[in-house]
Amino acid sequence: MKRDIYFLEKTFKLAKNAEGCTSPNPLVGAVIVKNNKEISCGFHKKSGNLHAEIEAINNAKVSLRGATLYVNLEPCCHFGKTPPCVDKIIKSGIKRVVMASLDPNPIVHGKSISKLKKAGIKVSIGYLSEKARRLNEVFFKNMQVKRPFVVVKLAQSLDGKIATANGVSKWITEERARKFARKLRDKYDCVLVGVNTVIKDNPRLNGFKKIPYKVVIDPQLRIPKDSYLLKNNLQKLIILASAKAKKKSLKEAKVFFIKEKKGKLPVKEILSVLYQHGIMSVFVEGGSETAANFFEEKLADKVHFFIAPKILGGKDALTSISGQGLSLRDSPKIRGMTIEKIGQDILITGYPYYGKK
Amino acid sequence: MKRDIYFLEKTFKLAKNAEGCTSPNPLVGAVIVKNNKEISCGFHKKSGNLHAEIEAINNAKVSLRGATLYVNLEPCCHFGKTPPCVDKIIKSGIKRVVMASLDPNPIVHGKSISKLKKAGIKVSIGYLSEKARRLNEVFFKNMQVKRPFVVVKLAQSLDGKIATANGVSKWITEERARKFARKLRDKYDCVLVGVNTVIKDNPRLNGFKKIPYKVVIDPQLRIPKDSYLLKNNLQKLIILASAKAKKKSLKEAKVFFIKEKKGKLPVKEILSVLYQHGIMSVFVEGGSETAANFFEEKLADKVHFFIAPKILGGKDALTSISGQGLSLRDSPKIRGMTIEKIGQDILITGYPYYGKK
Repeated sequence: MKRDIYFLEKTFKLAKNAEGCTSPNPLVGAVIVKNNKEISCGFHKKSGNLHAEIEAINNAKVSLRGATLYVNLEPCCHFGKTPPCVDKIIKSGIKRVVMASLDPNPIVHGKSISKLKKAGIKVSIGYLSEKARRLNEVFFKNMQVKRPFVVVKLAQSLDGKIATANGVSKWITEERARKFARKLRDKYDCVLVGVNTVIKDNPRLNGFKKIPYKVVIDPQLRIPKDSYLLKNNLQKLIILASAKAKKKSLKEAKVFFIKEKKGKLPVKEILSVLYQHGIMSVFVEGGSETAANFFEEKLADKVHFFIAPKILGGKDALTSISGQGLSLRDSPKIRGMTIEKIGQDILITGYPYYGKK
Repeated sequence: MKRDIYFLEKTFKLAKNAEGCTSPNPLVGAVIVKNNKEISCGFHKKSGNLHAEIEAINNAKVSLRGATLYVNLEPCCHFGKTPPCVDKIIKSGIKRVVMASLDPNPIVHGKSISKLKKAGIKVSIGYLSEKARRLNEVFFKNMQVKRPFVVVKLAQSLDGKIATANGVSKWITEERARKFARKLRDKYDCVLVGVNTVIKDNPRLNGFKKIPYKVVIDPQLRIPKDSYLLKNNLQKLIILASAKAKKKSLKEAKVFFIKEKKGKLPVKEILSVLYQHGIMSVFVEGGSETAANFFEEKLADKVHFFIAPKILGGKDALTSISGQGLSLRDSPKIRGMTIEKIGQDILITGYPYYGKK
């Protein structure tokens, strides 16, 4: 068991090498062990490339007869962009497969295990399953509810302000926390902001290593012509406007028109449009009204609160999450919370929980 | 050195036995060691009672000749409510005194050390001095700036709200955090609130073990006649009103009239009045305007932010610290910060730092 956990942990590490690159696929790592020694490993690098298990099988320099395959997610049994992994595993001579978690994809879920067992391969499952689910929280959410995974990021003072009473918001947190936040963008398919943030801050919204899709919620198409987003990487810009807005073209930017509900673009519709566009994860970066919409519609899956240990005060200073507000009963509680220091700042990460059990 | 630190740590533990009881005196513990064995100890129990050093000397069952006295604060050399400790130490035959910190009181500061040395007693100082200062942060502040030490306590949601958009504030944090906060009241001489908090919540403001002074900032004397505070322990109630308010008697409650400045009772004046009244420490508990005043006037010395890991949102929900607000430059940064979990809630404690170095 200890050895199994050790090698499973290694599959997680391998899988993470491709963080931010595999969408819409999950992060998967694989290790092959024979006579207690690792003889091969691999990970899934990006959609269309070989799956981790096949990488590991191909990388092996010795016969796999009697070997054990470790993998963080149930291998596939269907034809996607590549042929089913289980067939290749069975053919390889591998005698045992240890996996951390079932595949949440209904066309795979448990079916591969049956197929492996039928072929006489021993299957072990259950170790580190929660960790495996967290590693692929985007993919699990996609498969389970058919919409993008939503992460809301905020940077505020200890007393919950994202700007001073005079409207100054640069910068609440320190350079190190801001760099950390930029790196988080690399993990997700798009960065989303409200148009007011574009008007006020003219942000670039780039990641550290990649240029994600940039999504602007802009009901009346007020995005300034000279904004950075309209001048750079236009093919990565997606604008969500109201169906009532005058349809105009914004160069090569994609504009989707969504029907308003109570004067707003419903978050559910926004996510549906993005999902259809192949966007599996959304990193929401503001402002406070936009963030509020996601919580009020119970569609924020994860939060990152960067908290600067300073006090801004101000009755009229902008609060980090505005909107109509929630009752104590309806307010999401943060579960699975972690607290860390990023330089001088504090980062609180967790998962909003909306319902009662 | 290791042994010295060990016994000094013990003096801290002894001193803390009287937490909340010694005002206006500091917390002091003393241990006497002879031939590497503790032979006696003591602590200062309350103002007027024996000092810790004398307690320890009196408690000894064997001769103190050649012994070492450990104490967290420089012994006194002046006549207060009790005679000077140094004289008794010199007479006792103690040959070495190890102290963690100098006494910040200018009539003692360093003078006792000189006197001990002149009498041929070896003096060691410097170990754990910062810890010694923190233990008696109230007393140090009192001696250094001649005003009460001010602690501001807040209980808010992750996004900085102390009530929902509908005005509901009971309860943001859980029972365990609230109990912890009640226990904090025991450490300080008074609990201070604005009159709006009294009108809205009708609080009792009692500690866990003691009934502290209760101070209400009530410029227009609007405190409701049937409020708990006006019906119980009136001798512990202090009301601070505007000099412009119609002078009326509120039963046995003490009412002090203070001259307004820019429409408010200046915090500096409030603290001055309380200090003259023998109040050495103030535990500020709300509301958000009252808290803001202390930060804007740079007179909050310590903060306890209880943060419930939930999101309330709301443009109009009450923020934890309101007031006019501060600029990024003027906003106090929290130093010496500690972060702990109290049940499900988070407690961030630290010391606002206002200036630039």
